[in-house]
Amino acid sequence: MLSGLRVVEGSAFVAAPLGGLALAQLGADVIRFDTIGGGLDYKRWPVTDEGVSLYWAGLNKGKRSIAIDLSRDEGRELATELITAPGDDAGVFLSNFPAQGWLADDALRVRRRDLVYLNIIGNPDGSTAVDYTVNASSGIATATGPVGSLLPVNHTLPAWDIATGLNAAIGLLAAERQRRTTGEGQFISLSLADVAFTMVANLGFLAQAQLMHENRPPLGNDMYGAFGRDFATRDGRRVMVVAISLNQWRTLVRATGIEEHLPQIERAFQADFTKEEDRYRARDAIAALMKPWFEARTLDEVRKTLDEQGVCWGPYQTFTQLVDDDWRASTENTLFGMVAHPGIGPLLTPASPLRFAETPNEPPASAPLLGTHTDEVLHQVLGLSAHDIGRLHDDGIVASAASADHT
Amino acid sequence: MLSGLRVVEGSAFVAAPLGGLALAQLGADVIRFDTIGGGLDYKRWPVTDEGVSLYWAGLNKGKRSIAIDLSRDEGRELATELITAPGDDAGVFLSNFPAQGWLADDALRVRRRDLVYLNIIGNPDGSTAVDYTVNASSGIATATGPVGSLLPVNHTLPAWDIATGLNAAIGLLAAERQRRTTGEGQFISLSLADVAFTMVANLGFLAQAQLMHENRPPLGNDMYGAFGRDFATRDGRRVMVVAISLNQWRTLVRATGIEEHLPQIERAFQADFTKEEDRYRARDAIAALMKPWFEARTLDEVRKTLDEQGVCWGPYQTFTQLVDDDWRASTENTLFGMVAHPGIGPLLTPASPLRFAETPNEPPASAPLLGTHTDEVLHQVLGLSAHDIGRLHDDGIVASAASADHT
Repeated sequence: MLSGLRVVEGSAFVAAPLGGLALAQLGADVIRFDTIGGGLDYKRWPVTDEGVSLYWAGLNKGKRSIAIDLSRDEGRELATELITAPGDDAGVFLSNFPAQGWLADDALRVRRRDLVYLNIIGNPDGSTAVDYTVNASSGIATATGPVGSLLPVNHTLPAWDIATGLNAAIGLLAAERQRRTTGEGQFISLSLADVAFTMVANLGFLAQAQLMHENRPPLGNDMYGAFGRDFATRDGRRVMVVAISLNQWRTLVRATGIEEHLPQIERAFQADFTKEEDRYRARDAIAALMKPWFEARTLDEVRKTLDEQGVCWGPYQTFTQLVDDDWRASTENTLFGMVAHPGIGPLLTPASPLRFAETPNEPPASAPLLGTHTDEVLHQVLGLSAHDIGRLHDDGIVASAASADHT
Repeated sequence: MLSGLRVVEGSAFVAAPLGGLALAQLGADVIRFDTIGGGLDYKRWPVTDEGVSLYWAGLNKGKRSIAIDLSRDEGRELATELITAPGDDAGVFLSNFPAQGWLADDALRVRRRDLVYLNIIGNPDGSTAVDYTVNASSGIATATGPVGSLLPVNHTLPAWDIATGLNAAIGLLAAERQRRTTGEGQFISLSLADVAFTMVANLGFLAQAQLMHENRPPLGNDMYGAFGRDFATRDGRRVMVVAISLNQWRTLVRATGIEEHLPQIERAFQADFTKEEDRYRARDAIAALMKPWFEARTLDEVRKTLDEQGVCWGPYQTFTQLVDDDWRASTENTLFGMVAHPGIGPLLTPASPLRFAETPNEPPASAPLLGTHTDEVLHQVLGLSAHDIGRLHDDGIVASAASADHT
């Protein structure tokens, strides 16, 4: 879908690599440069017994890797040439390194005036922030966790990194689109804190706080404003059921057989269960009616009835249960393939979640080892000769996969 | 940035409206059509005392709204004409309605062959799923919450809806880019479950489960694989501190004054605290050393020292604290403006988090009332005369803001 587009990535951790991944999985040629030995994220946990990072392997799939000694001027010059290399479909740079010194926008733009450069930062004033610190301040942690909890609960998913990485891909595509019309480049700044705080505003949390001075409390696993709750099954599993639309509500009532008792509950709560907000208000009573149905059935029995009735629900699963039991995260799902990763072995590996009907989708790809494409990129993108490339190796300015891994 | 691009949106809830919002906030002309009276999300909580949905207002900012009776053939024909209207920058459709009947890809594509149509679904097989049910099955809920928790903990942030909406914007921009080169349209399917399960694979959770049969346990508010933890302050507030890089670690040690005690802890744990994984392994001991420093200081005192030392940290805040105390979610941040929303009043309103240096950014905008732009869109996009538009109103096929709100 994006074949031909070349993106250079200078990055570490989640957000920027994820933005590059989203583009690589759509067929863009994403070239990630790292310093020889790898950046701060090259050995991040989880790692295999041999110390290979599953985290790095996950976030750099389908990219090309070049290893350059970025502490030396000659290495920085090579990276600069890569970032600013000519070509209508090139000159797109994604980074979360400080946009200072040799990576300052001015320093790069004198080499390519129409560069599209997106820089990910922590706070909008340039000070440090990461997903965890931004989340703490976003309000979300105080609305997460058990009912009545007085302590904030962090979510484990790095949701703000994810939203920032995907926003980065949007920003690059939007600016590259504009460049194709106007010929003009762009410097784009994107802060984790801005992503988080604009999003809690988009979702109405801030408006509720501003207008009604209301902080949404932690609701356990309940959904806010509708009927959604988790239940235990007879065999010690748990399920999440959700009834937002009237149709979802009716199928859930029918499946769990509580229909005859609802009018009494409606009277007791002066509620009308055709209304979403009334189902939310009386949710504890509704859940108490439903609970025995789930407790009397195994997960398989629950699954059978809920699926037959078309209820919106899902089983809670651990990661191993997801991999072992769920076809949606298996090679039965065409987005996933069993792909050999260098240094790791075969891994269940996803492609982009975007399925294009009219175009072959990019197949799942592995991540490169650090420096796998060093020589190829130097030759193909920068036009260096075998002789020049040999000299760069001899001088320790670049390294390829066999030798890039030394710190 | 995207001015000129026209996107038609037929949507409800979070993911699809959020995808449209991301494009509208970059200047695209996003026209959302709804049935007269509003869709399932038009009255979603939180609502004002007058029943106006802050949720709807947050997710539809900067869009145009047209209200059409979608239960009648004539209304569906109007919506079809809107979706398939001519123009190089038009013919882009985003929806989470079932792609069936009049919204089937075939039915629309006979009217505009090069349509770019992205359809958001629940599961990849087309069955129902929402953020909550997908999250339950993703494994993430079993890795969230207090240490030792045996029950899954849902995150309150609709993270999978967010990731799906942003992926939708990426998919539309990528396909529209391809159309400009090849002239070809595209049907794109995007499932919430695929977004979630490919993402837990991207982040290494699935690889860890597959290769090492390991399920990451809930870690409370600790960060995995590095030193990151929350602490209480003397005045009853809490802060999150993070030390990933060696530099972040050293500034945190210096700020909290624990340096002299670290060698003993290192010996006791056979650890080398220049290594990230050793700091993670000995995190409870490290935290026990730091805890008294935080407990002896107010949040303001903590803030002063940590900021001076350049520590990566953030205070936990409720939504009201975020709105009242944090400049990053205030009009001091140029991304936010105080904008009057019809039916609500002035709201702290964000623009896109993407800051473009070379182009004026789109200012924060309010959401329309349902049907605000009905006549304008019918005239401007479909070329209908005042007479024709009047007839559609008389027949109840369309409604404008004053009358669209009736159910």
